Amino acid sequence: MVTGAAARDVGFVGLGIMGRPMAANLLRAGHRLHLHSRSGVPPALLAAGGVPCPDAAEVARRAEVVFTMVPATPDVERVLFGPGGLVEGLSPGKAVVDASSVDPAATRSFAERVAALGCDFVDAPVSGGELGARDATLSIMAGATDAAFARVRPLLEVLGKTITHVGPPGAGQTAKVANQIVVALHIQAVAEALLFAARAGVDPERVRRALLGGFAASRVLEVHGARMTARAFAPGGRVELHRKDLALALEGARALGVALPCTAAAHALFDACVAHGDGALDQSALVTALERLAGAPVAG
Amino acid sequence: MVTGAAARDVGFVGLGIMGRPMAANLLRAGHRLHLHSRSGVPPALLAAGGVPCPDAAEVARRAEVVFTMVPATPDVERVLFGPGGLVEGLSPGKAVVDASSVDPAATRSFAERVAALGCDFVDAPVSGGELGARDATLSIMAGATDAAFARVRPLLEVLGKTITHVGPPGAGQTAKVANQIVVALHIQAVAEALLFAARAGVDPERVRRALLGGFAASRVLEVHGARMTARAFAPGGRVELHRKDLALALEGARALGVALPCTAAAHALFDACVAHGDGALDQSALVTALERLAGAPVAG
Repeated sequence: MVTGAAARDVGFVGLGIMGRPMAANLLRAGHRLHLHSRSGVPPALLAAGGVPCPDAAEVARRAEVVFTMVPATPDVERVLFGPGGLVEGLSPGKAVVDASSVDPAATRSFAERVAALGCDFVDAPVSGGELGARDATLSIMAGATDAAFARVRPLLEVLGKTITHVGPPGAGQTAKVANQIVVALHIQAVAEALLFAARAGVDPERVRRALLGGFAASRVLEVHGARMTARAFAPGGRVELHRKDLALALEGARALGVALPCTAAAHALFDACVAHGDGALDQSALVTALERLAGAPVAG
Repeated sequence: MVTGAAARDVGFVGLGIMGRPMAANLLRAGHRLHLHSRSGVPPALLAAGGVPCPDAAEVARRAEVVFTMVPATPDVERVLFGPGGLVEGLSPGKAVVDASSVDPAATRSFAERVAALGCDFVDAPVSGGELGARDATLSIMAGATDAAFARVRPLLEVLGKTITHVGPPGAGQTAKVANQIVVALHIQAVAEALLFAARAGVDPERVRRALLGGFAASRVLEVHGARMTARAFAPGGRVELHRKDLALALEGARALGVALPCTAAAHALFDACVAHGDGALDQSALVTALERLAGAPVAG
């Protein structure tokens, strides 16, 4: 039930692994949800009161604020501007919140085109994965004008725990790319360190625990490091999606004239994982690509 | 004063930035300290009751357990086996604890030579820097036999907060190298991410704070990330010492047949910092080498 705020007409387009639990949390908070997904609306969301719509345009006609949560930049473009897309149903005063993780530069252009229709655009990519989506503990990085951010903030607070207004439209996506650089290179750090220890004949799990007490402490050493020593590579965040995010980082960096040497190396190792058929494994499987270079595992 | 344990005759050789506060903590805990340092014994340690010795050999004659805390592998070798070195004063049943951060393979050979004299050898490198040494919050990674570890553990507990017995002699140094790999690549991760954000026109400090809420969270993002955005490069841990540790990692990796691509890249950037005259700055100054590649700072 909505506490301290009125129920709103909220749209949600894209009901995959992330979108589904996010939409469920908005329903649980008492909002009226208008839903569309290429693969159909999951029965659980209909049972909880969600209203199915034949296309994104219809979602935009019915809702005041429309969320999108789709895999990649071309998907956002299609949902917004393709046939039956959101812009066909948008009227001045509405708002679009893109929670997908996509190209910051493309996002700035989407924001301009939506603003030209008299609507707000907020990029609000998330970190925290399926678990964070379900438990509403996502970290959300928003790019928006102050007014647009204020308007959608109560909805973002239903979905996540740490909500940061990073800057103008596009800034949320830039922060998300930065996030993915940090997470990938933290995984790379832990993989190089544990492989070094294992090959030197020292128990990598004891090393991992010893390192948690000092400056090496990180959430990745805690979570992904444990997955490496336990050989538990069920996702979690998939190699192939993280690789896409690093590709955004490298394309962006090239356009900006920035060299990201370790991001490039991590991207190559994710490439190697995908080439080896491991694209659907957890990101921590990056260690297996390093191990193939060296010829022996961290553990097992 | 010693609580629940008898006062012991403890030696300390090497009274630099780290050794001095560690020796002071052992004195404060009520032990009798026998001290030697190439640059003389600091007056504060004498005032606190420390006994100066003319050389390391004399320290070994007077103490039951002797700590060494010197910059690099050749220094440990000199203090142990050089003229006036520890082995001249060691007699069966004594113990040597090397808290320096040095080569794991050399450490295994030091341990064997000391064991051949009927003495224990413990490698016990530390993480946590000058502040951790002063506050006795160091993380200590020990390599030793079970009996030798049990014997020196009460002394290590005076010096640090997280004490881990990682494995046999040399394992502590291997864990320390792993620690330095993780810390260096966490710094590299934060540097690449914040530089990317800054060059994309987004406030890197806001990005840093947004990232602390999710999987990107690390002690390095917290501490070294803040130093990068504040341009506060007073050490902390020095570039030139961390570079030495990464050189140990790369030499060890080569001997073990392990490829560490990002450790190699971070080492090259630390090299660039030293070449630029910044070797005495904090490790977080690694970001300045990336910036020179890109031609613009993270902030400032």
